[in-house]
Amino acid sequence: MEKKDLLSHNCITRLPLYLNYLKSLDYDDLTLVSTQSIATGLNINAEVVKKDIAAISSEKGMPRKGRSVVLLVKDLEKFLGAGCQINAVLIGTGHLGKALLNYDGFSEYGLNIIAAFDSDPRCREIDVCGINVYSMSLLDNIIKDKHAEIGIITVPSHAAQSVAEKLVQAGIKAIWNFAPINLNLDPSIIVANVNMASSLAVLSHQLYLNNLK
Amino acid sequence: MEKKDLLSHNCITRLPLYLNYLKSLDYDDLTLVSTQSIATGLNINAEVVKKDIAAISSEKGMPRKGRSVVLLVKDLEKFLGAGCQINAVLIGTGHLGKALLNYDGFSEYGLNIIAAFDSDPRCREIDVCGINVYSMSLLDNIIKDKHAEIGIITVPSHAAQSVAEKLVQAGIKAIWNFAPINLNLDPSIIVANVNMASSLAVLSHQLYLNNLK
Repeated sequence: MEKKDLLSHNCITRLPLYLNYLKSLDYDDLTLVSTQSIATGLNINAEVVKKDIAAISSEKGMPRKGRSVVLLVKDLEKFLGAGCQINAVLIGTGHLGKALLNYDGFSEYGLNIIAAFDSDPRCREIDVCGINVYSMSLLDNIIKDKHAEIGIITVPSHAAQSVAEKLVQAGIKAIWNFAPINLNLDPSIIVANVNMASSLAVLSHQLYLNNLK
Repeated sequence: MEKKDLLSHNCITRLPLYLNYLKSLDYDDLTLVSTQSIATGLNINAEVVKKDIAAISSEKGMPRKGRSVVLLVKDLEKFLGAGCQINAVLIGTGHLGKALLNYDGFSEYGLNIIAAFDSDPRCREIDVCGINVYSMSLLDNIIKDKHAEIGIITVPSHAAQSVAEKLVQAGIKAIWNFAPINLNLDPSIIVANVNMASSLAVLSHQLYLNNLK
């Protein structure tokens, strides 16, 4: 796997959009695509798309013809980790946890959820989509045994900090946090937050302001 | 409802964190809280918290004593829309759609999901958490009838643009988009994206870079 080191945060967030768009096209080995048409299709500035694609692409595009869709998909998949699976564990098998366990699109980004955990014994009677749900007491052993590197937190927010600490103690290096709190962890731990309530708050506030007009 | 008009995007995204934190405290009518302790609890810069709270608070804090938790919770709830319900419809009752329908925390932000829609007739045999799942052919009527203002898109990405256009035609003013594509809509429509794949791509890229060190 070769990943360019210096891509911006914003560029990386756009790469899944490009991959998704290209895969939605009806293409074969000979199909070409221009960065302009990707830009139009995704409603993103064309110069931005051109720069992003140039940064991750292994071949130069042909002027006025474009790039091979097949090769570009391959480059994006390679960059986004499809060739290199990272083991992850998920804590909290409520509705959101189950939605994530059921979603099969994360493997495109190299995410391989190998086990789920829940403190509620009732949740452990089932497995979700072939993924076993274990007791929290097994967290440490399973993380070490399976070399899991990412922990996905979908527990209620009051439990999130303590779960995060347990994950870090067990050797987890990166946390994907869906609980609406800021985790307080050693700066060496990578944390990405998906805060739905914050996104909703912004939406509802903008709607309120527009309704005032 | 009085909302301050000029709060920054970043400030608004933090307000749900404050509300969540305050509600996790064991408090009564007399309990006071300092912005410093909120800052410490949430791992956010204290000056930032102080400014945010001052912007939405209806009362001045007492120097060296702090603010009433009860009043602050009330102010945050008021700002975030708990007093003013906005009707919303959800399109796409797959796992993520179901997770959102099952989540009862959105009402704190004024979101009242009044109906769900799915193009697959098999999904319409059930209702999810008391919310009926209707055929897409009823979308227009129900949105107009119930004065729904927000559309939540949880369909696969190839269907998202066309669903968004139908929502806008029916009178929806704001879209909360969970499909990993950029929607191409009239600029007057408010769009907030929750792109999990992008968040995961950033996490996995940072992990890769750290592993190189």
